Amino acid sequence: MASAADRNPAIVLVRPQLGENIGKAARAMLNFGLSELRLVAPRDGWPNPSAGPAAAGADVVLERAEVFPTLADAVADCANVYATTVRKRGVTKTVVTAEEAAREIHAAPGKSAIVFGPERSGLETDDVARARAILTIPINPDFPSLNLAQAVILCAYEWSKAQALVQPTVEDLLPPASQDELDGLIAHIEAMLEPRGYFYPYSRVDATRRNLRNMLTKPGWNHLEVRTMRGVLSTLERDPAKG
Amino acid sequence: MASAADRNPAIVLVRPQLGENIGKAARAMLNFGLSELRLVAPRDGWPNPSAGPAAAGADVVLERAEVFPTLADAVADCANVYATTVRKRGVTKTVVTAEEAAREIHAAPGKSAIVFGPERSGLETDDVARARAILTIPINPDFPSLNLAQAVILCAYEWSKAQALVQPTVEDLLPPASQDELDGLIAHIEAMLEPRGYFYPYSRVDATRRNLRNMLTKPGWNHLEVRTMRGVLSTLERDPAKG
Repeated sequence: MASAADRNPAIVLVRPQLGENIGKAARAMLNFGLSELRLVAPRDGWPNPSAGPAAAGADVVLERAEVFPTLADAVADCANVYATTVRKRGVTKTVVTAEEAAREIHAAPGKSAIVFGPERSGLETDDVARARAILTIPINPDFPSLNLAQAVILCAYEWSKAQALVQPTVEDLLPPASQDELDGLIAHIEAMLEPRGYFYPYSRVDATRRNLRNMLTKPGWNHLEVRTMRGVLSTLERDPAKG
Repeated sequence: MASAADRNPAIVLVRPQLGENIGKAARAMLNFGLSELRLVAPRDGWPNPSAGPAAAGADVVLERAEVFPTLADAVADCANVYATTVRKRGVTKTVVTAEEAAREIHAAPGKSAIVFGPERSGLETDDVARARAILTIPINPDFPSLNLAQAVILCAYEWSKAQALVQPTVEDLLPPASQDELDGLIAHIEAMLEPRGYFYPYSRVDATRRNLRNMLTKPGWNHLEVRTMRGVLSTLERDPAKG
């Protein structure tokens, strides 16, 4: 059984040009919990002093980055290799979206890798041929120039979303108030409206009450919010300037 | 019936600092088919010469960008306003993921806006209070520093993905009231509460106002509901028995 870290895909950058872009890719990876970066023949060698500042704190990814002479070496231990490209290729190969790839990676046994080509030119046909599948991000056909770090972050994001265990969303909402509390609020506001002629003409009183109730049940206010609204009403019952 | 372009959300950048980041955000938007950029009080004015090169061809987005003095002005015509934040807020407000927001935006009638705070600091609590919901991107809690263009691209990407899924639904719900109408309601209730001492002690006035605004933005009341609520308030301003 592979360990959790082994199940995380490696991000492979093939012949990246600017150190800055390597740093940005590292940052994008770590934003969504990926930390295994592999570099194939980076143009300006490695380490690259421009990478660190661009990583904005994701130094651990850069420090552990491994360098390989060829893509074949970089993915030698990988069972599931995805080649990212936005361009159509004359290659007969399965094409998946980033979302589909993410699901496959979580389900598949063996190590996975997502491979990105150099800035501007993208992956060579030979690099693409090495992959099991093509990963394509559906993009605006009139403006398909996705930069390297952005392509990486979209793949990392989808991988993170697909991770079944990682779904503790920020949830500090209180449960909705009980029907009792809501009825108390509605009775309060009706009692204030009644002597002021709100329900006139009385032939419409049922519809008007229903309307009011619909409006006040719509928010799903919680206990504290209902209490605040009761406070508002109590305040409005006072005479002005006597507050 | 709103046109297709009207259904696309506006991207609102609040007090962005660097022109370069505005350009990168514009590029990220256009990658996934969004083109309506609104800027609230950009630090270095507008236009900004650094934005163009960073937009890498997305000039049309920058050329059409509109500048507003405040967030209130920028979203005055919007019915569905999402405040993006990765930090937990002491605000009782619905929290949705980028994916959920994307689905809601496609389904909801009325204009939508996704609001992003300044680089580093993010949105102020008062800005967040103005929104109907908080949009949070579930991110690595140990490395949550998402840059502006990356946050924008993830939201634009989800919007684009959801577009493919949307079935045109028969919509007999009324669209939510505009931010303008909502501001009118809030001003009305505050004007009634003020002379009755609701905001005493004044040291807490900002928090109390924010609390009230959060509560009243939560329902997503439509035009008729806001008008009904205004009618309720006008009735409460009368003396009892004189109705």
